[in-house]
Amino acid sequence: LSRRLVVALVHYPIVDAQKNVVTTAITNLDIHDISRSARTYGCTDYFLIHPIEAQQELLGRILGHWREGSSGRRIPARKEALSLARGVRSLADMFDALGGRDAVEVWVTSASPLLRAMTFPEAKARLDGEGKPVVIVFGTGWGLAPSVIENADAALVPIRGEGSTFNHLSVRAACAITLDRLRGAQ
Amino acid sequence: LSRRLVVALVHYPIVDAQKNVVTTAITNLDIHDISRSARTYGCTDYFLIHPIEAQQELLGRILGHWREGSSGRRIPARKEALSLARGVRSLADMFDALGGRDAVEVWVTSASPLLRAMTFPEAKARLDGEGKPVVIVFGTGWGLAPSVIENADAALVPIRGEGSTFNHLSVRAACAITLDRLRGAQ
Repeated sequence: LSRRLVVALVHYPIVDAQKNVVTTAITNLDIHDISRSARTYGCTDYFLIHPIEAQQELLGRILGHWREGSSGRRIPARKEALSLARGVRSLADMFDALGGRDAVEVWVTSASPLLRAMTFPEAKARLDGEGKPVVIVFGTGWGLAPSVIENADAALVPIRGEGSTFNHLSVRAACAITLDRLRGAQ
Repeated sequence: LSRRLVVALVHYPIVDAQKNVVTTAITNLDIHDISRSARTYGCTDYFLIHPIEAQQELLGRILGHWREGSSGRRIPARKEALSLARGVRSLADMFDALGGRDAVEVWVTSASPLLRAMTFPEAKARLDGEGKPVVIVFGTGWGLAPSVIENADAALVPIRGEGSTFNHLSVRAACAITLDRLRGAQ
């Protein structure tokens, strides 16, 4: 038995290289790759958070193409993975869709160390029990804005290679590795 | 002490959904994401294998842009990661660059089970010792052609989530997870 797991990808509020709060654009391969990773590791939902209507329309067209078009018939596994993805305007809208902020536990991720972050073995132990659904939140750009981190229930340590301090993974890779560390079958 | 680790991404020979041997196109985010993962986990080289001159020229332009252009100054970590990437025309050309086929050990990956594949703990034990450099080979499209698999020294088990048989990860995610399982710092 394991807790329900949800993935969120935030395009606002995000910081840029100068720590300004910005909005990033939706990337097609973020939709595909993270849906496929989420489905592989038994996540129930993948929320793409973007405040701009035109970006939500773009996302809706891409998802509709796979849900209803010929590509979904050609690659059924892709259609199945993309069925987890949906767009919302804000973190608040995501929480509403999940029954409210208090109905879930929010874990944030970062390429830089955060205060009192859980190690992955600690996080895995916490996930492999009973409890509220867990939403793992990933940032685009240069990472999640401080307001997102401050309002989380827990944080994960950054992903590192053995003996390395290099911290410039793609969000697609970071998400895949995070889910594998929490829910991978060796 | 650990053995030298090299990543290879094959665009030919690859199979399509009907198991025909085909050539796939180079994808910009395969260059970036796999370079970043390779650098994170201490790989020394990332070979992109493509037989077509126009695709090698495209790859060269993208890499040159990051090595010499303004983007590399703007994001030094990206420049550092992309310095691992290089294009070659064939697996044979990659082996030549590494001192010959017998100078390296070739491990293939697959989304489907392969005969006598190593588990990740077995592979990690084999890597954490002395020995020839290890080249981990990833396929694009629907996976590596049989000729590549038959000529390998070893294979890795497919990546799975706990209690799941879903096997449609992106190659970018599969590469990131593979390297993390072999060289991740928990």
